[in-house]
Amino acid sequence: MAPTPDISPLAPKAFPDLPSVAGVQLATGACGVKYRDRADVLLAAFAAGTTVAGVLTQSKTSSAPVDWCRKSLPGGQAQALLVNSGNANAFTGVKGIAAVEATVAAVADTLTCRPSRVFTASTGVIGEPLPSHTITDAMQDLAGNLSGTDDPARWRAAAEAIMTTDTFAKGASATATIGATQVTIAGIAKGSGMIAPDMATMLSFVFTDAALPAETLQSLLSDVAERTYNAITVDSDTSTSDTVLLFATGAAENGAVDEAGLADFQRALEDLMRDLAHQIVRDGEGATKFITVEVSGAEDDRAAKRIALSIANSPLVKTAIAGEDANWGRIVMAVGKAGEAADRDRLAIRVGGVEIAAMGAAVDGYDETPVADHMKGQEIDIAVDVGIASGADAGTATVWTCDLTHGYITINADYRS
Amino acid sequence: MAPTPDISPLAPKAFPDLPSVAGVQLATGACGVKYRDRADVLLAAFAAGTTVAGVLTQSKTSSAPVDWCRKSLPGGQAQALLVNSGNANAFTGVKGIAAVEATVAAVADTLTCRPSRVFTASTGVIGEPLPSHTITDAMQDLAGNLSGTDDPARWRAAAEAIMTTDTFAKGASATATIGATQVTIAGIAKGSGMIAPDMATMLSFVFTDAALPAETLQSLLSDVAERTYNAITVDSDTSTSDTVLLFATGAAENGAVDEAGLADFQRALEDLMRDLAHQIVRDGEGATKFITVEVSGAEDDRAAKRIALSIANSPLVKTAIAGEDANWGRIVMAVGKAGEAADRDRLAIRVGGVEIAAMGAAVDGYDETPVADHMKGQEIDIAVDVGIASGADAGTATVWTCDLTHGYITINADYRS
Repeated sequence: MAPTPDISPLAPKAFPDLPSVAGVQLATGACGVKYRDRADVLLAAFAAGTTVAGVLTQSKTSSAPVDWCRKSLPGGQAQALLVNSGNANAFTGVKGIAAVEATVAAVADTLTCRPSRVFTASTGVIGEPLPSHTITDAMQDLAGNLSGTDDPARWRAAAEAIMTTDTFAKGASATATIGATQVTIAGIAKGSGMIAPDMATMLSFVFTDAALPAETLQSLLSDVAERTYNAITVDSDTSTSDTVLLFATGAAENGAVDEAGLADFQRALEDLMRDLAHQIVRDGEGATKFITVEVSGAEDDRAAKRIALSIANSPLVKTAIAGEDANWGRIVMAVGKAGEAADRDRLAIRVGGVEIAAMGAAVDGYDETPVADHMKGQEIDIAVDVGIASGADAGTATVWTCDLTHGYITINADYRS
Repeated sequence: MAPTPDISPLAPKAFPDLPSVAGVQLATGACGVKYRDRADVLLAAFAAGTTVAGVLTQSKTSSAPVDWCRKSLPGGQAQALLVNSGNANAFTGVKGIAAVEATVAAVADTLTCRPSRVFTASTGVIGEPLPSHTITDAMQDLAGNLSGTDDPARWRAAAEAIMTTDTFAKGASATATIGATQVTIAGIAKGSGMIAPDMATMLSFVFTDAALPAETLQSLLSDVAERTYNAITVDSDTSTSDTVLLFATGAAENGAVDEAGLADFQRALEDLMRDLAHQIVRDGEGATKFITVEVSGAEDDRAAKRIALSIANSPLVKTAIAGEDANWGRIVMAVGKAGEAADRDRLAIRVGGVEIAAMGAAVDGYDETPVADHMKGQEIDIAVDVGIASGADAGTATVWTCDLTHGYITINADYRS
C-alpha cells in the first residue's frame, strides 16, 4: 500500500496570486493555540459600512463560534473576522461560549467596534476548551500587523493560517462588473482534511469590494452556496463548524442595481465559490480521483440533487471508482436508495460520456474500452438520467466528490489520537 | 496490511443445528447459474394452507423477483420458495420479468400450484440476464430431491446455497408457545458480503409450523423487522434485492389466539431475527468489530433510530473504531448531522459503559484506561443520550453495525470485476 502523500495528487499546481480587495486588511499570527511554529490565527478588519452574509452548518450540535455568527448575521454589518485553527471550540459547553465572548471582546476593544460586528470561526480539535488567552494576549500584535491586500503573500498567509490537516492552501479570485464598475472578489477556504480527533470542517471566507446591501448579499450567497459548497461531499459527514462568510466592503463604490444588474457578479461569485469547493474535494482525505456526478430527468432539482448525493456518498460507488471499475450496477443501487422517483425501466447511465445503460438495461454491444481508459484518469464523469421528466421541466443537479481509498482509512483509523 | 480473512473474525464458531419445521420441505441443487461446483439454487415446498408475510427493499430500482413478491404477498398464501445465488436478476429489463415468469412457472407446473403462491428471490451479479434455463432445466430433479427438515444438514445446505460472498452460512432457531402448543421457528439468511459487481443483498427466509393468518404474520414481521433487519447497517448502501419472507405452515395446529396470546411467539421471532441480523453484520465486509449503538432521550423512537443510524453509518465513527480510538467528538458530529432534535448542552456519551461526556462537555477527570481496553475488544458498545426527553416518553433505539477497515476497501476497490 502506498503511503499517504504529503500533498493531494489532485492539488492545483500552485496557490494563485489573489488580487487586492479594497477595504480589507489582513494579519496572521502564530499564537500556539495548538500547533507550534506556524500561524494559527487570522484577523481581518473591514472598512466602515462593510456588509456580511453567511451560510452555517445545519448541525444540531453546532459549535460556539457558529452560534455566535448565527446570532450576529441578521445585523448585516461586519467590522472584523477572527479565525483560529487547532481548536474547534465545539462541544465545550459554557467554556466555549465564554471563549467566544473573550476573543470577540478583545477584537472589539482593539478595533473599537461593536462585538456584534465581529465574526469568528474555529477549526481543529473538538471537545477541548479553547485556550482563549493565547489569542487575546496576541490581539494587540495582530491588530498592529493589519495591512491591506496589495501583496498576494498576505492572502496566501491567511489561507495557510486557517489550515488544519489540509495538504494545500486554497484560494480563488474573480472580477465582475456591476453597472459600469469593475469589482473584485477574493476567497480562501480550508477543507476536508481530518485526523483524529479533528473533524472535517469547511471554512470559507470571501471578500469583495462591491457595495451591496446585506440582504442582497445573503440572497446571492444562499443561492450560490446551494450549487457550490452544498454540492460537494467527501464522506457524507457534516461538521459542527462549517462556516461560509461573504464580506462586501463597498470600496468599489458601484451604484445600486436591480437583480438583473447583478447577473455578472453572481456568475463571478459562483465561479469563485465552485473553484474553492472543488479545491476542498481535491483535498479530500485519501482522494485519488475527482468525481463529477450529473443527474438529469428527475422530478425537480431537489430530487436530482438527492439522487446525485446518494451516488456521490455511496461507499460502494466510491470504492469502485478507486478500483478504476466502471461498476454501473452500484450506480443503479445508489439511484434506487435515494428514495426519489426514478424510472428503473428508463434509467440511462453514461461514464466518461459513453452510454453504458439505457432503457433500464445494459446497452447492446457495450464496448468497455473507452470507459476503462476514462476510469484510469484523475477526473471521472458520471451522468445519470432517471427518466422521470424531460425537457425544461426536468430536474437536474451536479455534485462533486472524491473516491474512497485505503488512504482514507489510513488517515482516519491507523493513527490514534 | 493483513490479507482479508477467509472467514470473518466475528463469525460464530459453527452453524447451529436447526430443528425440524413440520410442513417445510427443502432441496438444493448446483445449477451453474454462475458459480461452478457449488449449490446455487434452493427450492422449498410448503404444506397446503401455509401463510406468508414479507418485507422487501424500499429501493426505487428493485429487482424483478422483488417486484414479483410484492405483487403476490397480498394473497397471503405460499406453496413454494425458489432462490438462486450468482445472479440478482436486477436491472435486466423485460428479460428480467420473463426470467421470473419462466422460473416461477416451472415451479408451479412441477409442484402443481398457482404461480402467485410461488415466491422467489435472486442474489448476485446485477445487470446480466438471468440464464433461467439453468434453473428450469433442473426443476424436475430439484423437486425430486425435496425432503423434510429432520436432518439439520438440510438447513445448512439451504443456507449455503443462497450465499454469494458471505464468509459463513447463517442460521438460527427458536421455540415458543401459542396457547398450549409449542411451535418451532427456523431461519436462514445471507448477508453483506459483496465483491464487484455483486451487491450487498440481505436475503432471509424464516419458517415456522405455527398456524397464523397471513395478516397476523405480516403485522408481526413488519414490527419485528423494524428492530432487527432494519436496525442493521454495514455501509449505508441499500440493495435492489433485499427480501425477508416468513412462512407459517400451520402444522403445529395451535388454535387461534388474540394479540396477547402471541407475545411469546413474537419474543421468539424477534430473538431469532435479531440473531440472524447480527450474523449479517458479523459478516460485514472487512469487519473486525461488532458495534452496538444505543440512543436514548430522543423526541420519539423514530428520531432515536435516525440518530443511531447516523452514528452507525458515519465513516468517521467507523474508522475511529477500526483504529480502536474512542473518538467521541465524531459521535457528537454524527448526532448533530442526523437532523433530529438533540440538546447539545445535555448530550451524554458512554463507551463500554464508561461516561465520557455529559452535559455537553467532556467529564472532569475522565480516565481513558477502561475505555481504551474496551476499544481493543471485538464488541464495542456506544450509548448516547441526546437530552431531549426522559422517562417513559423518551425515544430510544438500538442499531448494530461494524467498523470500516482496509478490508472493506480491499474487497470493494482492489479487485476489478
